[in-house]
Amino acid sequence: MSYAAVQLIETKRDGGELEPEAIKWLIEGYTDGSVPDYQMSAMAMAILLNGMTAGELAAWTSAMLHSGDAMDFSHIAGAKVDKHSTGGVGDKVSIPLAPLVAACGVYVPMMSGRGLGHTGGTLDKLESITGFTTGLDPSQFASILETHGLVLAGQSESMVPADRKLYALRDVTGTVPSIPLISSSIMSKKLAEGLDGLLLDVKTGSGAFMTDLEGSQRLARTMVGIGSSYGVDTVALITSMDQPIGNEVGNASEIAESITVLRGEGPADLVELTLAFGEVMLDLARIGGGRGRLEDAIADGSALKKFLDVTRAHGGDTHMIEDPSLLPKAPLTAEITAKADGYVSRCDALTIGLAATRLGAGRETKEDVIDPGVGITLLAKVGDKVAVGDKLAEVRYSDPEKWESQRDALESAWKIISEPAKPPDLIIDRLDSRTS
Amino acid sequence: MSYAAVQLIETKRDGGELEPEAIKWLIEGYTDGSVPDYQMSAMAMAILLNGMTAGELAAWTSAMLHSGDAMDFSHIAGAKVDKHSTGGVGDKVSIPLAPLVAACGVYVPMMSGRGLGHTGGTLDKLESITGFTTGLDPSQFASILETHGLVLAGQSESMVPADRKLYALRDVTGTVPSIPLISSSIMSKKLAEGLDGLLLDVKTGSGAFMTDLEGSQRLARTMVGIGSSYGVDTVALITSMDQPIGNEVGNASEIAESITVLRGEGPADLVELTLAFGEVMLDLARIGGGRGRLEDAIADGSALKKFLDVTRAHGGDTHMIEDPSLLPKAPLTAEITAKADGYVSRCDALTIGLAATRLGAGRETKEDVIDPGVGITLLAKVGDKVAVGDKLAEVRYSDPEKWESQRDALESAWKIISEPAKPPDLIIDRLDSRTS
Repeated sequence: MSYAAVQLIETKRDGGELEPEAIKWLIEGYTDGSVPDYQMSAMAMAILLNGMTAGELAAWTSAMLHSGDAMDFSHIAGAKVDKHSTGGVGDKVSIPLAPLVAACGVYVPMMSGRGLGHTGGTLDKLESITGFTTGLDPSQFASILETHGLVLAGQSESMVPADRKLYALRDVTGTVPSIPLISSSIMSKKLAEGLDGLLLDVKTGSGAFMTDLEGSQRLARTMVGIGSSYGVDTVALITSMDQPIGNEVGNASEIAESITVLRGEGPADLVELTLAFGEVMLDLARIGGGRGRLEDAIADGSALKKFLDVTRAHGGDTHMIEDPSLLPKAPLTAEITAKADGYVSRCDALTIGLAATRLGAGRETKEDVIDPGVGITLLAKVGDKVAVGDKLAEVRYSDPEKWESQRDALESAWKIISEPAKPPDLIIDRLDSRTS
Repeated sequence: MSYAAVQLIETKRDGGELEPEAIKWLIEGYTDGSVPDYQMSAMAMAILLNGMTAGELAAWTSAMLHSGDAMDFSHIAGAKVDKHSTGGVGDKVSIPLAPLVAACGVYVPMMSGRGLGHTGGTLDKLESITGFTTGLDPSQFASILETHGLVLAGQSESMVPADRKLYALRDVTGTVPSIPLISSSIMSKKLAEGLDGLLLDVKTGSGAFMTDLEGSQRLARTMVGIGSSYGVDTVALITSMDQPIGNEVGNASEIAESITVLRGEGPADLVELTLAFGEVMLDLARIGGGRGRLEDAIADGSALKKFLDVTRAHGGDTHMIEDPSLLPKAPLTAEITAKADGYVSRCDALTIGLAATRLGAGRETKEDVIDPGVGITLLAKVGDKVAVGDKLAEVRYSDPEKWESQRDALESAWKIISEPAKPPDLIIDRLDSRTS
């Protein structure tokens, strides 16, 4: 069937509903170039302002998913479950989580992204391990998954090309913050992995892309709805992103902190999120044992061994896993100290994430090269009692000018008040396609 | 000053107001190609859905107007006044009006358009006079205006290039029906003519682009506001476009009917509109005498002589003005007859305009060539008493297949009822920048 793009834009502009066949035609045309960017950007703006129905969203996601190659791991007998985070600061949960659940029998075909804005990216973090390759071809990807039950890679060029093209267009046309477009972008990529189950970590708060809880809940509901319409068991946890997760923000330092979790020594919030997510992933994979099984896999070293094995399979230097002091470290250090006695009531994720990015831990333009050794170690988080002069953070940097330009901003991330302050709840809400 | 287009799009997307400098930067960038189509189409959709403030609209129009060369007729001592119609069916008013008011001393630097959709265009009609050239360079344009007080041409390539580019983009991105974008498009072109006064004929009804009165009033108010902010006296008349104006719909036949007006023999509605518009244009030019002066210019032959002179100046064959039977005529004829006794209660402009276009009087695609001799002569309009078998219309056509495909549609344009029906008011509302 053939359509005129302008008529489809008019339908969406006027609040009408697009037919599934029309959406398929549009996405195919956009992928092959017969529908030009200038029509797609007008459509994206109309979608951003007028929304999409559940039916349109399912058709849009499906068309994106079928714009390229999809993975098929049906020859692997075990359950394939992935986890996706909408992105936060200090959010390294995937790194201990994936080997942990893989050690318990879940197959994890994890496709991750790079740092975006003030948030870090799993691929960038993994690449601070010398030799760790995240760009795999489909057969390498399948082979590591089959052998180790776990693979940690970037999306291949041939998967979901419509999303790659549309994402780049949205970035320059003011059409990023649309729940239907965000949802279909994430879900088309995840559904292309041939999963049995999917855990979505939807961040909310200052350091999240969706800062308000209501928006985060809508995003979670929308994505769970898409997963459900696709027959993939999908659980979304809405988690707090007002302060960074764990104590490390950076690339190499987040790998080191991830290893502490696998050694049973991680910071409480990071450990709790890893175990809570692990429980959901075991459940989605229909593997029993729950939290006790996960704790055993840490205690008996099998989770850490899984990370070592998969690092070796990706070409990474396993000495860095065995001895994290070998990971890159920036040469210069500075500290942030408390200016008052009292309790930390704010340790702002966005402010810290932006400072880390600008010190070199992230990219401000596509061309920027990440400095893996740059990082911020948080020594006081919300609820901690501090006295004047106590260290709030240690900063590792390479460029003194950059540090000078970020010092004041970074200092402003903390707020100290006289009354005790309560740390935020880690997990705020849960949605489950199997029960809703 | 420099901006990022994506941030301007985001501002408009979120309902914010763009600064005049930002609008200037955007339009300049779009004109020189540094702002790509895909950003402009997203912006256009955001404007269509979120609107523009009066301040934004003034800045947008000004930026468009300054995107190319503007005319300067300040060396001509008399008042320059133009008239613009938003387009209708059988709307040939400009053709008798312009020579009529020019004969009374108004300078009319008229830039017209071509037929669009179901409506005819003044340029297409004029070109049914053999040799009549509407594509003039700026010096030819100025010379004819100065010599004859009147020139009838298309827009030059160097005027308002931003509008030419944006109009083509809007056409394929579903962003045509936006009152701010329509208004700034029309007004930027008209203000580039260096006018002292402007008469806007804003059509409303089935054959207009804006079918509802409320929308037509908003469009008129918006355009009068722009004219006012530019210091150009602007009057908008909102006129009925439920049935065609006059009795002729076509190209050559509308020229012939225009000549009847200049000879004092035109149909009542067309004569009335011509005189009413002429009164406004004399008033805008601060030339006294009103309707009496216009009637004198018809009676003494000076209006017709002006049309002859200007036709000669444009290279047109003046014999066709002196003897309109020399104008092109399609070879075949057919008629539409009444199926009932009674009174005509509808003679639908859109239906008749579409049928005429499809018979060859207009273009369905940019590549179509107009058949100037095709036309429909209306023999019964709203209010007329008819008996079964009376002719409602005569059709002149060249292609029997096209006629067969249009016959039923054209017949459906008339409705005959048993009670007397009243013809619609010609002029529904009036807005004046000098009194509002």
